[in-house]
Amino acid sequence: MSSVPETAQIGKHVVIEKDVVIGENVTIGHNTTILKGTQIGDDVTIGSNCVLGIKPAVNQRMRNVADRGDQLTIQTGTTIGHLASVYAGTRIGKNVFVGDHASIRENVSIGDASVVGRAAIVELNTRIGKSCTIQTQAYVTGDTTLEDDVFIGPCVSMANDKYMGAQSVTLNGPYIKTGAKIGNNASLLPGVTIGRNSIIGAGAAVTKDISDAVTVAGVPAKKLNP
Amino acid sequence: MSSVPETAQIGKHVVIEKDVVIGENVTIGHNTTILKGTQIGDDVTIGSNCVLGIKPAVNQRMRNVADRGDQLTIQTGTTIGHLASVYAGTRIGKNVFVGDHASIRENVSIGDASVVGRAAIVELNTRIGKSCTIQTQAYVTGDTTLEDDVFIGPCVSMANDKYMGAQSVTLNGPYIKTGAKIGNNASLLPGVTIGRNSIIGAGAAVTKDISDAVTVAGVPAKKLNP
Amino acid sequence: MSSVPETAQIGKHVVIEKDVVIGENVTIGHNTTILKGTQIGDDVTIGSNCVLGIKPAVNQRMRNVADRGDQLTIQTGTTIGHLASVYAGTRIGKNVFVGDHASIRENVSIGDASVVGRAAIVELNTRIGKSCTIQTQAYVTGDTTLEDDVFIGPCVSMANDKYMGAQSVTLNGPYIKTGAKIGNNASLLPGVTIGRNSIIGAGAAVTKDISDAVTVAGVPAKKLNP
Repeated sequence: MSSVPETAQIGKHVVIEKDVVIGENVTIGHNTTILKGTQIGDDVTIGSNCVLGIKPAVNQRMRNVADRGDQLTIQTGTTIGHLASVYAGTRIGKNVFVGDHASIRENVSIGDASVVGRAAIVELNTRIGKSCTIQTQAYVTGDTTLEDDVFIGPCVSMANDKYMGAQSVTLNGPYIKTGAKIGNNASLLPGVTIGRNSIIGAGAAVTKDISDAVTVAGVPAKKLNP
Repeated sequence: MSSVPETAQIGKHVVIEKDVVIGENVTIGHNTTILKGTQIGDDVTIGSNCVLGIKPAVNQRMRNVADRGDQLTIQTGTTIGHLASVYAGTRIGKNVFVGDHASIRENVSIGDASVVGRAAIVELNTRIGKSCTIQTQAYVTGDTTLEDDVFIGPCVSMANDKYMGAQSVTLNGPYIKTGAKIGNNASLLPGVTIGRNSIIGAGAAVTKDISDAVTVAGVPAKKLNP
Repeated sequence: MSSVPETAQIGKHVVIEKDVVIGENVTIGHNTTILKGTQIGDDVTIGSNCVLGIKPAVNQRMRNVADRGDQLTIQTGTTIGHLASVYAGTRIGKNVFVGDHASIRENVSIGDASVVGRAAIVELNTRIGKSCTIQTQAYVTGDTTLEDDVFIGPCVSMANDKYMGAQSVTLNGPYIKTGAKIGNNASLLPGVTIGRNSIIGAGAAVTKDISDAVTVAGVPAKKLNP
């Protein structure tokens, strides 16, 4: 059994599986499911109807995922919204905010004070730095890096498979450098690098690497005249 | 405790917190969470595994939200789907339809007979008129106005922060006038006005105001030859 | 009452309504709702906090949906993730994978070994062939056909109503032929046909039919020079 400190506020019909560790002053909403081994730090707030600590699953046509037995770790002061899902094998830093309906896969790390917006999705093997903002409904694909202070606008889309399933390749998401800002509903193609402090316009499709401190827009994205 | 009329059909494992008011002939699905103070009118149907009446939460990098103590009000004849979330401080009118997985934030008003589609999101401080249709997965950002009879196609994206977090500004979503229609997956930039009965093409990016009764398309959006 | 075989692993607070049929070696996660009449085959895995077997609902401004009394059928070896919703009147084939937060409407058929990604949505009256991949957050509209081996990239958007609610028309989604691949965040307009093995670029807007074995990109989408 998992032990729940007296300072915890646990809602009704919450399921807490075995080997779950719960810190001090934790709040968990109603009807939430906390799966085996999840580690929850002090002062963490979790909403209602969430599922946390999910083990990866696939069918025969999907990339196999090694279960390395790692747990989900949620550090001090972080807030998880309602109806959200987070996988085992992921580490969420301090004072992070994860919105309602968001989903975060396995083997992800999220730096302190970052925000993963409402219904945003972060796929596996992705590293997100500190103080990043991933806005509502944005899609951060697998095998992606966001350095620090990156802004991903609402509904941004990314891809990591340039052959779209036709060949067996190493998947490769975007690499987004410190301070870059991606406008709403922009599309980033597999493996593109976005330079430091560069700006991608709303609705742009970025098909190749973007250097530092430039602004691009359009489909395909081109540099704007200064 | 909250009182539940005899005419209500309440599912299993439903959590109803205190000060909830439930009208006549209300149906609530299984495993749904109704938070403190929610006001549910007559003939309202709510699906399973929903969370209603959520109080706003933020982390230190997000805009602070005043909790004015307002409740969620859902008026007569409205249907809320399954796995949906709706915040406190919002008023949903009569005969509205809110799809499964949809999410509606605080300080929103939704006019009678409007539709908020499956997995669509409506952010805070937004006013939606009567008989509007917001299609599946569309994103209506904060501080936005939709007058009456507006059609927002599937996967439409909007933004309200022209500096993408870089400066502290007054956020300003689109203003969409009566009868305007936005094609699927179009992107609207912060603060643009869409004129009465105008049509935005699928996949367009609207970077400036659009006058009444015109059709625009492309990235950036330009007027089509008539 | 529904009978649950001894080989089933059923989570806590699961609701199983009447006339549900559960095969051998089925796993159902916690807090999941299985509605009346759902048919679950052998070796099926269902996550936590799902809602399965939903009956269609509308308001007075939405297309009326005939409830033909059909059940949801999930065939052998299929996996349904967490926080997903699937409607009655739909048939999901063998060894299919449905991701977390995905939603599948009524009168849909999904062929063996296909994948419906995380938070992807499949609307009503849609036929999906075998070994298709529908990536994360993609939107497959109603009245759509995907033949076999189709790849729908992340965040792809489709529409089926060319008048956007202004007229009463027969709705008509895209028809996507065997082996076609749609890049991430592309937009497909109502009724377009995508030819066999054709490729649509990321962020493209497809406004007319695309023949077999070509590559198109841009807004509107045009053939790329070979």
